[in-house]
Amino acid sequence: MDLDLIRRLSQPADTKVILCVLDGLGGLPGPRGRTELEEADTIVLDRLAEQGSVGRTMPVGPGITPGSGPGHIALFSYDPLVYEIGRGALEGTGIGFELGPNDIAARGNLCNLDGSGLITDRRAGRMPTEQTAEVCKQLSTIKLPGVELFVEPVQDQRFVLVLRGEGLSDQLTETDPQREGVAPIEATAITPAGERTADLVRQWVTAADAMLKGRVQGNGVLLRGWSPRPDMPPFPELWKLRAAAVTVYPMYRGVAKLCGMDSIEGAHSFEEEIALVKQHWNDYDFFFVHYKYTDSAGEDGDFQRKQEAITAFDRALPGLLDLKPNVLVVTGDHSTPASMAAHSWHTVPLLMWGDHVRTDTATRFSESQAAMGEIGTILAKDVLPIAFAHAGRLAKYGA
Amino acid sequence: MDLDLIRRLSQPADTKVILCVLDGLGGLPGPRGRTELEEADTIVLDRLAEQGSVGRTMPVGPGITPGSGPGHIALFSYDPLVYEIGRGALEGTGIGFELGPNDIAARGNLCNLDGSGLITDRRAGRMPTEQTAEVCKQLSTIKLPGVELFVEPVQDQRFVLVLRGEGLSDQLTETDPQREGVAPIEATAITPAGERTADLVRQWVTAADAMLKGRVQGNGVLLRGWSPRPDMPPFPELWKLRAAAVTVYPMYRGVAKLCGMDSIEGAHSFEEEIALVKQHWNDYDFFFVHYKYTDSAGEDGDFQRKQEAITAFDRALPGLLDLKPNVLVVTGDHSTPASMAAHSWHTVPLLMWGDHVRTDTATRFSESQAAMGEIGTILAKDVLPIAFAHAGRLAKYGA
Repeated sequence: MDLDLIRRLSQPADTKVILCVLDGLGGLPGPRGRTELEEADTIVLDRLAEQGSVGRTMPVGPGITPGSGPGHIALFSYDPLVYEIGRGALEGTGIGFELGPNDIAARGNLCNLDGSGLITDRRAGRMPTEQTAEVCKQLSTIKLPGVELFVEPVQDQRFVLVLRGEGLSDQLTETDPQREGVAPIEATAITPAGERTADLVRQWVTAADAMLKGRVQGNGVLLRGWSPRPDMPPFPELWKLRAAAVTVYPMYRGVAKLCGMDSIEGAHSFEEEIALVKQHWNDYDFFFVHYKYTDSAGEDGDFQRKQEAITAFDRALPGLLDLKPNVLVVTGDHSTPASMAAHSWHTVPLLMWGDHVRTDTATRFSESQAAMGEIGTILAKDVLPIAFAHAGRLAKYGA
Repeated sequence: MDLDLIRRLSQPADTKVILCVLDGLGGLPGPRGRTELEEADTIVLDRLAEQGSVGRTMPVGPGITPGSGPGHIALFSYDPLVYEIGRGALEGTGIGFELGPNDIAARGNLCNLDGSGLITDRRAGRMPTEQTAEVCKQLSTIKLPGVELFVEPVQDQRFVLVLRGEGLSDQLTETDPQREGVAPIEATAITPAGERTADLVRQWVTAADAMLKGRVQGNGVLLRGWSPRPDMPPFPELWKLRAAAVTVYPMYRGVAKLCGMDSIEGAHSFEEEIALVKQHWNDYDFFFVHYKYTDSAGEDGDFQRKQEAITAFDRALPGLLDLKPNVLVVTGDHSTPASMAAHSWHTVPLLMWGDHVRTDTATRFSESQAAMGEIGTILAKDVLPIAFAHAGRLAKYGA
């Protein structure tokens, strides 16, 4: 549904909706011909599938493998092909850095340069995070005229550079040539709007090079993915409700915050996430609850661990059901089949349970039964409009 | 399909197509776990489902609950998000008032005002229709410079006001504040185009107030939903055919007439509708036949009566089959589950029977089998393009 129509039809109601995102939920058959979800022991999810309706989401479009950003904003009802979160903004978001409206962020790598300034290792031998943090502290002391500057470590040799000030722009080239044996690219404006920012970045790179000179590991910097804070219409205004994100990892709460949701922090496990939802049950109408462990296992190519992560989710789920949400949605932001050890384009199983659901023939929550479910195969951005309709939060269109 | 493409590809043929709309057909499981349609005795529909193909329509979009206007124009192949029928126009249409190209219509309520002009009852104690009709007759006598004026009773305290004249506009505020304890809003232009109309409406309201002064019930008027006759490209030109609507209720023939269809009038039951189709079989290529009783029962929350209405439709259906249409389509304009006693966003079962249909595994016409049918889940606006393709009325695209 397009956002103008959401704005027009959304209405407040005295109902609660929970969206559980099992990161990378969708899978592919393992050695016994069944997927991770199909092998998992999912007594609770199966009962919900039997009582509710199932289907599948296509996160972005046919054949498109989504990153975490598009995968989530689609589930938050934004068209991921219209609203893009730049790589710099996502990297900043991932470490909990709150981008402001006058910020421009870039992903940075410390790299190794040889005597003539050519890149010998784009990743500085995967320099340890603690050393990168030390270097970032140094690099933060560089002064630039008229802008504030943040250099934050991420992991290994990766860092985030944020420039904060009036009139900054993402209209400049990346300095990372994305190959070795050549020199870093000089930051150059690609439209006149980018000239001041490019000039500031050149000054910063020159100062950084001088500061890092003599280091054996990490004596240069590479920057890419210039991006401002994305301009998302705030979710609570679109839907006329109070929305909270409950996540263990900063990346996901960051994306939710970029969409204007509140973040309830402090959880280190799914059980603690559930406890926080319980604690704040009266403060919000919508809860986005993120479950990371399916994706991490999938990314590691560990079929067994992904299967167990799903079983563990199922064991804890009654804690959410006890709250008696009007509508509960369980799905993933994309597939991460263990056999691929990576995100994939495959559709993702979807389960909707609660008020006014039309039941279907499904008796299990599984990829194969989801393909024949009542909801059909829909774009991820259409999941919440349907869920909110079930919760009485969408008015009739036309007389 | 978009209307330009329809215009380009549609072609005449010596074939007949019938579209039966069972208003509010789609349902939700009742006490025995089956929907109204699934509980109904549908020997004929089941045979057609077995011989033909089934699927589901999404009337407007995911999660969107359609009013009768959007639900029908979508089935007539118009995009209901592009073509909107305003509330005033629909109310006029519903009582059989034929809006002209220079008309502006509003929905009116008689209301009760206290001594200082504040609204004490927006619905004038649901004033009886006959009294409202008397008042409308009086209010029709008010003269306004340069425009003709119609005031027609609808039901209870509701009426329609139509202004007819050159240069009228819908660019003015509603006078109904939609709450009590405040005064009606003065009609005010919201763009310069609305100034003359707002001035005329203020004159009319002042004259109406003077005329109704002293009445205990219904001594004020409230106006909303200003709307012109919607500008629909005529259906018979789009599709290059002769089209007729056969309905019992004026609302539905009104929407069909707004789309340029002829109306064959005089039926008071589905059997009489069938008799009219028979009588005019040679005069038209396309018949829209409306069946109201499913929706009225659903709106009343009466599962049993909705089930029986479907059974009654099934019993009468052979009368239409005897005419040997090339293609018969049976579906609804939206769902009206008895359990919700209201229109809903749920998909609607769709049956297509006749020439060139690809059969599927369906043996019954039911929500659950429709979910797995050959046609899939499609937008309602795509139903007729598919039906007309089956009837040889869509030319090949490209060489």
